[in-house]
Amino acid sequence: MGFDRLIEHIREMQNPTVAGLDPKLDYVPKFIRDAAFASSSDPLEAAASALLTFNKGLIDALCDVVPAVKPQCAYYEMYGWQGMRALVETIAYAKAKGMYVITDGKRNDIGATMQAYAAAHLGTTAVNGEQVAAFDADALTVNGYLGTDGIKPLTDICKTQDKGIFVLVKTSNPSSGELQDQYIGDKTVYRVMGDMCETWGADTRGAYGYSAVGAVVGATYPQQLSELRKALPHTFFLVPGYGAQGGGARDVVPAFDQNGDGAIINSSRGIMCAYQKRGCDEHDYAMAARAEAVRMRDDIAAALRESKGE
Amino acid sequence: MGFDRLIEHIREMQNPTVAGLDPKLDYVPKFIRDAAFASSSDPLEAAASALLTFNKGLIDALCDVVPAVKPQCAYYEMYGWQGMRALVETIAYAKAKGMYVITDGKRNDIGATMQAYAAAHLGTTAVNGEQVAAFDADALTVNGYLGTDGIKPLTDICKTQDKGIFVLVKTSNPSSGELQDQYIGDKTVYRVMGDMCETWGADTRGAYGYSAVGAVVGATYPQQLSELRKALPHTFFLVPGYGAQGGGARDVVPAFDQNGDGAIINSSRGIMCAYQKRGCDEHDYAMAARAEAVRMRDDIAAALRESKGE
Repeated sequence: MGFDRLIEHIREMQNPTVAGLDPKLDYVPKFIRDAAFASSSDPLEAAASALLTFNKGLIDALCDVVPAVKPQCAYYEMYGWQGMRALVETIAYAKAKGMYVITDGKRNDIGATMQAYAAAHLGTTAVNGEQVAAFDADALTVNGYLGTDGIKPLTDICKTQDKGIFVLVKTSNPSSGELQDQYIGDKTVYRVMGDMCETWGADTRGAYGYSAVGAVVGATYPQQLSELRKALPHTFFLVPGYGAQGGGARDVVPAFDQNGDGAIINSSRGIMCAYQKRGCDEHDYAMAARAEAVRMRDDIAAALRESKGE
Repeated sequence: MGFDRLIEHIREMQNPTVAGLDPKLDYVPKFIRDAAFASSSDPLEAAASALLTFNKGLIDALCDVVPAVKPQCAYYEMYGWQGMRALVETIAYAKAKGMYVITDGKRNDIGATMQAYAAAHLGTTAVNGEQVAAFDADALTVNGYLGTDGIKPLTDICKTQDKGIFVLVKTSNPSSGELQDQYIGDKTVYRVMGDMCETWGADTRGAYGYSAVGAVVGATYPQQLSELRKALPHTFFLVPGYGAQGGGARDVVPAFDQNGDGAIINSSRGIMCAYQKRGCDEHDYAMAARAEAVRMRDDIAAALRESKGE
């Protein structure tokens, strides 16, 4: 219940980070692309095959040091249904390797339609008398603009099937403030959304005090991270914006509670494209990703120790 | 540019409505399901095949009386990548029959990731030196919670490829007010979002004065529809909530401008499930859908005439 499985995973590995799997074809080493395009004449099928090979290499290299992966739907959808097939296979592969999988889809809708998204990404679909899992991640990112009607179908599945969601609260991008920083009475929109997360999650709390309704809060806004950590004691944070978007290890410290729990920090391009940044041979992309994941883990651990005056 | 193609289509057919294609398997007649499950042992493949057959029958029956269809992504995603393949094929089939296609995905993200969604649903993806269309709809629904960073990649494609988007402004569901009706200064959140639509669309206006950045405004809130129609003169409305959700023809009248342009009204279950409501033989589902679409067209036309005192 709540995010217990994820939290236990993080504790075992002493690593509160998640590797984003956002495999644009440009990020995939040429030797993988060449093999994929030699094996299929359908460009989307070939592209999807390249993504899957790339992801499997990353997962193999990361699965004993990083507790979770976060595939971003957009980078699979842009390669059509063939790309969505690569997403299904990526999720299955990562789970088989013991990783916790957060599908970053930012899905949102109401009633029966949100039930369909919940079934698609976290639950199962009834087909001819069978219950079939379609994408079957452990958690899904969602957008709460439509209110409770869009969240209830998800929390129902979180409770019965031990899954989680992350609601967009304060996003990492430069224009996030256009709406999110506006004031409703004496509270910002992001704070109103954060308070709703506490309400939505109230009856889904796990052993560590965190509910199954988490929040997305960007590393690029450390002051808001700190404010929200205090205000939302039962809401687990997914924190994008470390690395490529400009957030550093000190910026993410406020996301954690005094036990060092309460948040998981994402890096996507930093890990996936480490071989490009380090100037490695492209055949070593997975080892470069692992080295960067270890560096990021140690970077955050050092910042956490420093913040405690250790 | 703007929504010119859609507006011309509506005028030709004298029908400002769109048929939602939200094909839950429960809505598909048994004879179609039986044939699909006899042809494949993979449950998701069989389900996807049933959806596609159902949709093609609806499109054939509707394409000369209804200008547009709106497939809802969730109902395809719940059947996995196989369902997404049925979505690709549904969109292609509807376009081949001359219909305007609005993919209802409520997608949202930032920067490069939103570019990936834009490429996926409206534009093309670069694959091995080719530009390949993945889903290729005419328009996409999106969520603006993340601000301009999440919209700009879409308007870029709207301009170069004559596509459109609909941003969630005031949604049709009961809990939409939890955030959307709150006040930021003297404006509601939905009004702030509506004003952003006017800004985002400013340089994408077409021949009829409407930009390529439309808004979703629910039929279940006629007062807000009326307020927003006056406040957002360049923003075309996609109006859900007619029929099954409780909105009637008089409720949607305020969505239109004085020329009878400016909005398209959606019905999903009302049309798809007309054969169940009318107690028809299930083999006649497509003709029942057509009869309901014609009834809806005439219902709205009568309400529009009545409102003008004709």
